[in-house]
Amino acid sequence: MSLLDDIADVGVDRRRGGYSRHGFDSAELELRSWFIASAEARGLDVETDRNGVLWAWWGTPGDGAIVTGSHLDSVPGGGAFDGPLGVTAALEAVDLLRARGFQPRKPLAIAVFPEEEGGRFGVACLGSRLMTGALSPDKALALTDPQGITLAEAVRSAGLDPLRFGRDPVALARIGAFVELHVEQGRGLTVPVGVASSILAHGRWRFTFAGEGNHAGATLMGDRRDPMLPAAALVAAARRAASAVPGARATVGRIVPTPGGTNVIASTVDVWLDARADDTPRTRSVVEAVSSAAAEAAREEGCTVSITEESYGDTVVFDATLRDDLASHLGGVPALPTGAGHDAGILAAHVPTAMLFVRNPTGVSHAPEEYATPEDCAAGAVALANVLEHLSR
Amino acid sequence: MSLLDDIADVGVDRRRGGYSRHGFDSAELELRSWFIASAEARGLDVETDRNGVLWAWWGTPGDGAIVTGSHLDSVPGGGAFDGPLGVTAALEAVDLLRARGFQPRKPLAIAVFPEEEGGRFGVACLGSRLMTGALSPDKALALTDPQGITLAEAVRSAGLDPLRFGRDPVALARIGAFVELHVEQGRGLTVPVGVASSILAHGRWRFTFAGEGNHAGATLMGDRRDPMLPAAALVAAARRAASAVPGARATVGRIVPTPGGTNVIASTVDVWLDARADDTPRTRSVVEAVSSAAAEAAREEGCTVSITEESYGDTVVFDATLRDDLASHLGGVPALPTGAGHDAGILAAHVPTAMLFVRNPTGVSHAPEEYATPEDCAAGAVALANVLEHLSR
Repeated sequence: MSLLDDIADVGVDRRRGGYSRHGFDSAELELRSWFIASAEARGLDVETDRNGVLWAWWGTPGDGAIVTGSHLDSVPGGGAFDGPLGVTAALEAVDLLRARGFQPRKPLAIAVFPEEEGGRFGVACLGSRLMTGALSPDKALALTDPQGITLAEAVRSAGLDPLRFGRDPVALARIGAFVELHVEQGRGLTVPVGVASSILAHGRWRFTFAGEGNHAGATLMGDRRDPMLPAAALVAAARRAASAVPGARATVGRIVPTPGGTNVIASTVDVWLDARADDTPRTRSVVEAVSSAAAEAAREEGCTVSITEESYGDTVVFDATLRDDLASHLGGVPALPTGAGHDAGILAAHVPTAMLFVRNPTGVSHAPEEYATPEDCAAGAVALANVLEHLSR
Repeated sequence: MSLLDDIADVGVDRRRGGYSRHGFDSAELELRSWFIASAEARGLDVETDRNGVLWAWWGTPGDGAIVTGSHLDSVPGGGAFDGPLGVTAALEAVDLLRARGFQPRKPLAIAVFPEEEGGRFGVACLGSRLMTGALSPDKALALTDPQGITLAEAVRSAGLDPLRFGRDPVALARIGAFVELHVEQGRGLTVPVGVASSILAHGRWRFTFAGEGNHAGATLMGDRRDPMLPAAALVAAARRAASAVPGARATVGRIVPTPGGTNVIASTVDVWLDARADDTPRTRSVVEAVSSAAAEAAREEGCTVSITEESYGDTVVFDATLRDDLASHLGGVPALPTGAGHDAGILAAHVPTAMLFVRNPTGVSHAPEEYATPEDCAAGAVALANVLEHLSR
């Protein structure tokens, strides 16, 4: 029985299916409490750092620790594995190491990062971006959720002090190496466990089209300035642009017309573009093609468009020495790239970082159907235990 | 000072601008209470009928009454005039008639219909459709709002008995003639007041596209079945189809991807089409062209589409005798068609019905910028008083 079963009923999304657990919402706070209790039950000492990252320590906290962990939040209507598997596997790895009678020479810790998906406040890897200074606390704390609640308000409600948020060199210095276990999110892995080689360059852009809100029945077609038209053109342009660049991906998964009434021509439409590619030039070329098409379509309709880059991260290439060491220690498992972002990708610019992937038989992720077999999950926990033992001995 | 000022702070939508007042929500219930108090302050007797329609009676309720009125709900982020102006003008007309010392020979009533816009439960003219039997109570009571609350639950919370909902021949028989005053919703009126000639045929259709929810970064472009693509194609097809049919209008003002995350390929996308034209064949031809394009685009993407007709109403031609009588009595004001639906359009199939329009200087409606001058609103109230006096003497 997996520890994932412990949390199977937390944050269930009855409308969308799957789970909706977002940074500092009631479901994520319940999972954080569960993590603290589960770690303390194993004799680990739990502390919460300035940015709300949870740390469960085996041994005295100190610099150069071997750190594993992941996140507990999900996308809206997400799966059970993306995030929590890396946390439960870490707890299970501690159990395995204890059962082996292992005593780490280096401090060992499990870290849980808040709002990795950006499902509530729009910026992915929020906790690790804050810790590393990739995102300024002023900018972060002013982010709002769909209800208009700021991150500052949300963390204060959760008992944290927003004034302490920001770059945390002390926390970062404690990480001698970081290893995140995660469910694989494509169909790139044909054995139970592999290691990561790289993460695609990745950004999110918000396009706001503005036209003239009006009555859907009383407004002649020729009199319209309807921002839904250029918004739809953007969707088609994103598909065309990404298909033209090898390895690139572009997605519109979120679109919000205002006011959003059936019998109302929208006054504005917000569209979010998620774009990724092997490197920055390719990613930028996709976004530029989409932006040009969006501007042209807006102009044709008498609308305006404004474009905001909500986040961007260059290609991450994981530490080659660590990657090869772990792949070899695990018996020569394969190394593979991923299109998905992770806190490990943010930390990789600062500390030696690696990822272990657990096979995904269908390749589905960010959806209720996301799955990994119990056997592969167990194999992942064993592999993580082996890696932690190897690195911390 | 207009009675509209009394309700200027009820249901203000700070996010969208304008007003969001929907059937049986807290804002609409507050407006209903305000109406009851305002009518009782004028010595009118207020009753609530089986379907939640409010009736304020001047004189003994009875068959063959002269009835005026409109609705208090709005579209999401709607204007101040669409609906409430017909209610406040009716109260002001009663004041004017009282000041003239007029005593109606026929019973006179002001009716307030719930959920005319369909902004909460999706079906426009809900109250009048229920009263006339155009919508069955079983179908109506099962309608849900975006939070999943059924109409049955909402009306029960409002103190009404859903088991009494349904066709109400007694209420209908009491209407000798119905006259609804409304702000005009295009730029068709160049004098302060006019009368309505007809309403376009009008329906609402919900298209549900289903594909495969997945990860926006880890899923190759070629592996996608993304329902956002055919949804975007529908938007473009609606513009093309309506532009090809003279006088037709087609609008997509509402689109909801599920789960709706920036970094998630949607599993389903719901799109609502509002289509109208001079007659049923033209309206149907627009909807068929859009449906074909949607089905073709869904097929190309490996998605499915299901189409639900949420409401449909044929062209309404208002009673010509009544229309000419009122236009003449008001000094030869113009008659004009409208693209907007109204409770008067539903009642017109059952009782002699007319509408008075108040000039809209910009043509904007269903938006915060909707406007009519105080002078034109006052002229509308005087015209309504004259009409009620004429008909009920």
